[in-house]
Amino acid sequence: MVRIAVIGYGYWGPNIVRNFKGIDSATVPVICDASPGAQQRARQAHRNTLVVSDCREVLTAKDIDAVAVITPVSTHYELARRALENGKHVFVEKPFTASAAEAEQLIELAERKNLKIMVDHTFLFTGSVRKMKQLIDEGQIGKIYYYDSTRVNLGLFQHDVNVIWDLAPHDLSIMDYLIEEKPSGVVATGSTHFNGMADIAYITLYFADNVIAHFNVNWLSPVKVRLTLVGGEKRMLVWNDVVADEKIRIYDKGVDVHTQEGVYNLLVSYRSGDMWAPKVDQTEALKSEADYFVECIRNNQTPINDGHAGLRIVKMLEAADQSLNKRGRMVYL
Amino acid sequence: MVRIAVIGYGYWGPNIVRNFKGIDSATVPVICDASPGAQQRARQAHRNTLVVSDCREVLTAKDIDAVAVITPVSTHYELARRALENGKHVFVEKPFTASAAEAEQLIELAERKNLKIMVDHTFLFTGSVRKMKQLIDEGQIGKIYYYDSTRVNLGLFQHDVNVIWDLAPHDLSIMDYLIEEKPSGVVATGSTHFNGMADIAYITLYFADNVIAHFNVNWLSPVKVRLTLVGGEKRMLVWNDVVADEKIRIYDKGVDVHTQEGVYNLLVSYRSGDMWAPKVDQTEALKSEADYFVECIRNNQTPINDGHAGLRIVKMLEAADQSLNKRGRMVYL
Amino acid sequence: MVRIAVIGYGYWGPNIVRNFKGIDSATVPVICDASPGAQQRARQAHRNTLVVSDCREVLTAKDIDAVAVITPVSTHYELARRALENGKHVFVEKPFTASAAEAEQLIELAERKNLKIMVDHTFLFTGSVRKMKQLIDEGQIGKIYYYDSTRVNLGLFQHDVNVIWDLAPHDLSIMDYLIEEKPSGVVATGSTHFNGMADIAYITLYFADNVIAHFNVNWLSPVKVRLTLVGGEKRMLVWNDVVADEKIRIYDKGVDVHTQEGVYNLLVSYRSGDMWAPKVDQTEALKSEADYFVECIRNNQTPINDGHAGLRIVKMLEAADQSLNKRGRMVYL
Amino acid sequence: MVRIAVIGYGYWGPNIVRNFKGIDSATVPVICDASPGAQQRARQAHRNTLVVSDCREVLTAKDIDAVAVITPVSTHYELARRALENGKHVFVEKPFTASAAEAEQLIELAERKNLKIMVDHTFLFTGSVRKMKQLIDEGQIGKIYYYDSTRVNLGLFQHDVNVIWDLAPHDLSIMDYLIEEKPSGVVATGSTHFNGMADIAYITLYFADNVIAHFNVNWLSPVKVRLTLVGGEKRMLVWNDVVADEKIRIYDKGVDVHTQEGVYNLLVSYRSGDMWAPKVDQTEALKSEADYFVECIRNNQTPINDGHAGLRIVKMLEAADQSLNKRGRMVYL
Repeated sequence: MVRIAVIGYGYWGPNIVRNFKGIDSATVPVICDASPGAQQRARQAHRNTLVVSDCREVLTAKDIDAVAVITPVSTHYELARRALENGKHVFVEKPFTASAAEAEQLIELAERKNLKIMVDHTFLFTGSVRKMKQLIDEGQIGKIYYYDSTRVNLGLFQHDVNVIWDLAPHDLSIMDYLIEEKPSGVVATGSTHFNGMADIAYITLYFADNVIAHFNVNWLSPVKVRLTLVGGEKRMLVWNDVVADEKIRIYDKGVDVHTQEGVYNLLVSYRSGDMWAPKVDQTEALKSEADYFVECIRNNQTPINDGHAGLRIVKMLEAADQSLNKRGRMVYL
Repeated sequence: MVRIAVIGYGYWGPNIVRNFKGIDSATVPVICDASPGAQQRARQAHRNTLVVSDCREVLTAKDIDAVAVITPVSTHYELARRALENGKHVFVEKPFTASAAEAEQLIELAERKNLKIMVDHTFLFTGSVRKMKQLIDEGQIGKIYYYDSTRVNLGLFQHDVNVIWDLAPHDLSIMDYLIEEKPSGVVATGSTHFNGMADIAYITLYFADNVIAHFNVNWLSPVKVRLTLVGGEKRMLVWNDVVADEKIRIYDKGVDVHTQEGVYNLLVSYRSGDMWAPKVDQTEALKSEADYFVECIRNNQTPINDGHAGLRIVKMLEAADQSLNKRGRMVYL
Repeated sequence: MVRIAVIGYGYWGPNIVRNFKGIDSATVPVICDASPGAQQRARQAHRNTLVVSDCREVLTAKDIDAVAVITPVSTHYELARRALENGKHVFVEKPFTASAAEAEQLIELAERKNLKIMVDHTFLFTGSVRKMKQLIDEGQIGKIYYYDSTRVNLGLFQHDVNVIWDLAPHDLSIMDYLIEEKPSGVVATGSTHFNGMADIAYITLYFADNVIAHFNVNWLSPVKVRLTLVGGEKRMLVWNDVVADEKIRIYDKGVDVHTQEGVYNLLVSYRSGDMWAPKVDQTEALKSEADYFVECIRNNQTPINDGHAGLRIVKMLEAADQSLNKRGRMVYL
Repeated sequence: MVRIAVIGYGYWGPNIVRNFKGIDSATVPVICDASPGAQQRARQAHRNTLVVSDCREVLTAKDIDAVAVITPVSTHYELARRALENGKHVFVEKPFTASAAEAEQLIELAERKNLKIMVDHTFLFTGSVRKMKQLIDEGQIGKIYYYDSTRVNLGLFQHDVNVIWDLAPHDLSIMDYLIEEKPSGVVATGSTHFNGMADIAYITLYFADNVIAHFNVNWLSPVKVRLTLVGGEKRMLVWNDVVADEKIRIYDKGVDVHTQEGVYNLLVSYRSGDMWAPKVDQTEALKSEADYFVECIRNNQTPINDGHAGLRIVKMLEAADQSLNKRGRMVYL
């Protein structure tokens, strides 16, 4: 039985508690939050669970195997470090840490103590992303040309992070999971209208071999758009996450390139065929992720969304911030 | 009666001829194209119109008042220059010229000879763009925060220009028309997969006062997207050009900002109200533009889409190209 | 404090319990279900609530003020009758009863004992339906010409009722609420493919003055459609319940009719103007309905969805069944 | 060379002329219309074509092989009869005739004189309908359960026919083409709001073996809907004709029925799989139909849309009218 303490019972914490509680081989003996309001909500929802305000006892408690850190990013490092030092596995809300340096220390610490780190890149456990991963790994898309994602809506203003750190981790972690190659540089542009934090940003990632990825994140859009295009040599893929059904569509469309004797230019022609929307698993992503965390601990298995994955995303976020502040200056990774 | 010669009868030329012919106060006495195939199509469609292969006679003909240059951009400067030198007004397909230097010379020449230049920024004459202009000028959107446009589809490869020069002129000219302020710098990223010409590009324009504009142009998308978001202080606007009806939607959504005694940060709250889709004029844009060209000549009136407008767009295209080649290096305008 | 016993803890019962429990002035001291599985689910979810299998004690209990009957329709009459005889108000799942005769007896009994009957026509409490009601009552739609509703999807087969009794009560109760006039006759057609119960049906209601209503209900559709059109003299209204936002759209479209001296026919011309999507309240409908039930009991107020409303719907369902069985023979109401 | 005279140059005539002129093996030597305005439009568009006002000469002319009757339905019979009597093949706008009796006489006459009748059921020649026909004939849909079509919009009021005769011929002819079996009876309901002609109608067709078809036609809808559902034993099909792409979608969804030892009821379970949108041919339907008419004449081939097809549709329209007037009384075919 894996005993998981959950620190942080704000917006996301209740979902984490509910899903860990739903696992037969896990329990959530204690929930920790400094806010009296959050404590009361936790007590009402979970009458037979201990709710405390000071997390120190939790971090040192003998009868706790893992700690879920569901707090603002600025606190992730300190809480995760103390959990690891006390021999506890950690599940950390995204983004992993506030800096790459913090992430590297946590990874080193976890490896030394042979403990698991899992970063909550929830989208990797959605049926849509898993289906895209399967299609790409099966070679149905072919060599990838580009990855283009838009995630915009009238968003809740975060007072601790800007729109890059709030929205981009979702798409960066999905892209990082889907595309084997790693980006070599980042160019980011954007703007700030309130509270001194960027609320609109455009991020371009450069890869080898002319592969490119672009991310449009915006807190000031009147409409909600969650659209990702993946262009490949064989087929092209569209993921529209705001529709109820057929979120994933594969298009037998693309460019056929021929070389011809004595012709300088390539001969480029178009291919336009059927569209196909595969059935996608509807299981709640967070449930699958919670199961997977417990399974990784019990089988001493390294999660796909481990500290190294979290670090890669944090490095991209840091680089995007630097590039944004330099108005598009390339930052190499 | 304004006598207009049309040079170039490829993809767009037939529409130009049809629309100029539809005007009572104008005639198209001659069509010029070097290609025998184009000449034959022109003769079939317009039995009582002279069709010639050599444009020299057209450019010097006494009985021609204006010349429409509907040819590849590389030829615009030479053809327009000779038309102007021979005292003819010019209507030039977009983009205006292949370089800002060319555009400046044509403007200087036209002004010296008191002739009109109109650049074919057709979209300015659509009901949708005119409605957006009206709404912005009426102050219904309020101070503009950002302009975000996406124009992607599986496009025909141009062999003379890249995706920036092919698709971006549409949105840049619309933005230039809607937003009074002029951008101070450009950051562009993108990628090239075939024929050595960029087929995907992302362009950011920086304006004073944190206003930002972004343009996503892509020849390799399996789906056609024509979506523009304009975020303002009072309202937000969405233009979806691929839907049949209600292309323009105004959202009474946004951010309310308050300052409070002794509060450091601004207090930011959300406003979410009705959506409203105004009826939009359905007249063919090119017809309105053709009427307007003839009217500007007859009334000695300066078009909104004159040489200076064309030059502003060409400068942005040049700067975007430079920035793209430097992988996102800011280029000041 | 209104003490409500809930009988039936299958698919819908848990929502009923949750919402009645959410009201400060109400309690749910007991839940009753004959199925051991349902009892276990109820105990897990509501540890401090009594869960029983035999409803007799509930129906006679002194300390119960109202009974919510959330069971198959065939049992509604018997359970509601015994609750009323024991002096308890009743909240009955839709459709109210299996026959008009049963409904009339319950109404008579409730009125004699001055008790409330509320039929669970949940949709009347959605923001969308309330907005439509408001717009119609304000006269914004004008005289209504027609009401056309489609409610189709790949539905769960009911083993106790056909598609008319399963899906049509929603739209019939909405129509009954929105349109003052009452229908005079019903024509229904349809078909049966499995289990001997109709799975597709088309219902037409005739009203005075050429007003007509039509209902398309189908358990065999591959796509989910929830679309209602209301055509009026002044404006027309579309309610699309499967979209996330702007479910209600009002079109300034219609027909202008003029009479002209000496012209036999009316002169009919078209009007096409703006579209407008009002903001709609997002509160959970069942929560509002539960509040309203308790409020009606405490203020001795007659609900809009009382027994008479339930009876009107049951009469239409009975008539539709009869007409369906006679393959479209008109059945007068 | 097939010489085709076109009678009627109103709304549809110009498309007919343009398409017949586009065929190498056909000519349109003469266009006939009684209206001076129509004659002028015809002369402007077709300078080298004879335009006449009196159709008598056309119907008797020696050098005419076929006559296209593109006039109001009330005139179809008389014009087609005279053309056939004079030995000319006829192409008749839909609906074929104003009555089944007229249609039967024309068929008898054409067969006696070995002449072709083609009724302009244009939709049969669209890529979408041809694809649906192919899928059904290949057995991909399996045994058909139902056919459900909606064709509504703010329509132009016809002064000669009601909404059934105006809109239903499209869907009835498509259904007649796709489904081998013929309907046994019709139930129609509807309403009339202006000019004494029904502007809303709902038509149900009964087939053997519980197959059912329903048609929703409406001139008073604020939105344009063109949606057809076909439910089959193996798969289900959706044709949405108002979207730009993927008009045809095949759903691997349906009902699996099992019988089990000693179980009275069937065991019904649901199947939900992939969706697939086949590429559909984009050729203009009227062009294919015009080619086909000329081909049928030259190869003495019987068209799929011959007089008998036209008669079947007219019989359904007549029956629907009768049922509508009797408020849903079944009319047997």
